[in-house]
Amino acid sequence: MTGSSQETATASMYRKYIACLNARAWNELGEFVAADVVHNGRLLGVDGYRAMLEEDFRNIPDLHFNADLVVANESHVAARLRFDCTPVQDFLGVPVNGRRVVFHEHVFYTVREGRIAEVFSLIDKTAIEAQVRP
Amino acid sequence: MTGSSQETATASMYRKYIACLNARAWNELGEFVAADVVHNGRLLGVDGYRAMLEEDFRNIPDLHFNADLVVANESHVAARLRFDCTPVQDFLGVPVNGRRVVFHEHVFYTVREGRIAEVFSLIDKTAIEAQVRP
Repeated sequence: MTGSSQETATASMYRKYIACLNARAWNELGEFVAADVVHNGRLLGVDGYRAMLEEDFRNIPDLHFNADLVVANESHVAARLRFDCTPVQDFLGVPVNGRRVVFHEHVFYTVREGRIAEVFSLIDKTAIEAQVRP
Repeated sequence: MTGSSQETATASMYRKYIACLNARAWNELGEFVAADVVHNGRLLGVDGYRAMLEEDFRNIPDLHFNADLVVANESHVAARLRFDCTPVQDFLGVPVNGRRVVFHEHVFYTVREGRIAEVFSLIDKTAIEAQVRP
């Protein structure tokens, strides 16, 4: 398999992963996320990862993942995600309380054997604070 | 040129760009950064970009860019950068005041005609705040 088609394989997996999240298809999550996945240095495992996502959707009922930009190679995916949503209470410690906020997340994923094994995520909290400021 | 060697070309340019920053070789910056470069939505141009970097180095005399992870394709580079440094005063509004802080930046670059044309950067301000908290 060439570098180019490897790139397509990881990017294609990633697009399906994002579709899985947006469909809240939690039973399919294990197809995309490794059993021992690590998120920002914490070993969550696929069950802990699912619990984190389910809580995100509870806190943000209109949560939708928009992949503005995806850069992939055979072992990694990087994505700039855009969110336009309405967290019902606090979000990242910011008292959003039902206001609409638009912000980005920059995420790096390590892919092993076709699944996401490690995630490094940064969310633009400063943008959220600026939109919530009275 | 194949997708694979294109990937090498952008990743290689990026490694040289990082070396240019760490060498403070400002006269070479235009080899890597487009004349009309845009940074987080602001049209800085290469002169404004250089001024931003020079100010970063004034505020953080021991600033060094460490590319922990680089993901590239023919038109984009994504990098997870690690910093271990000592801002002398405020940094991102956080009163660091000469303390050592370790943090990451997640950056996406659009590459046009071999040069960085657009930059989307997020810095982990939350990590800096956690290290400065009394």
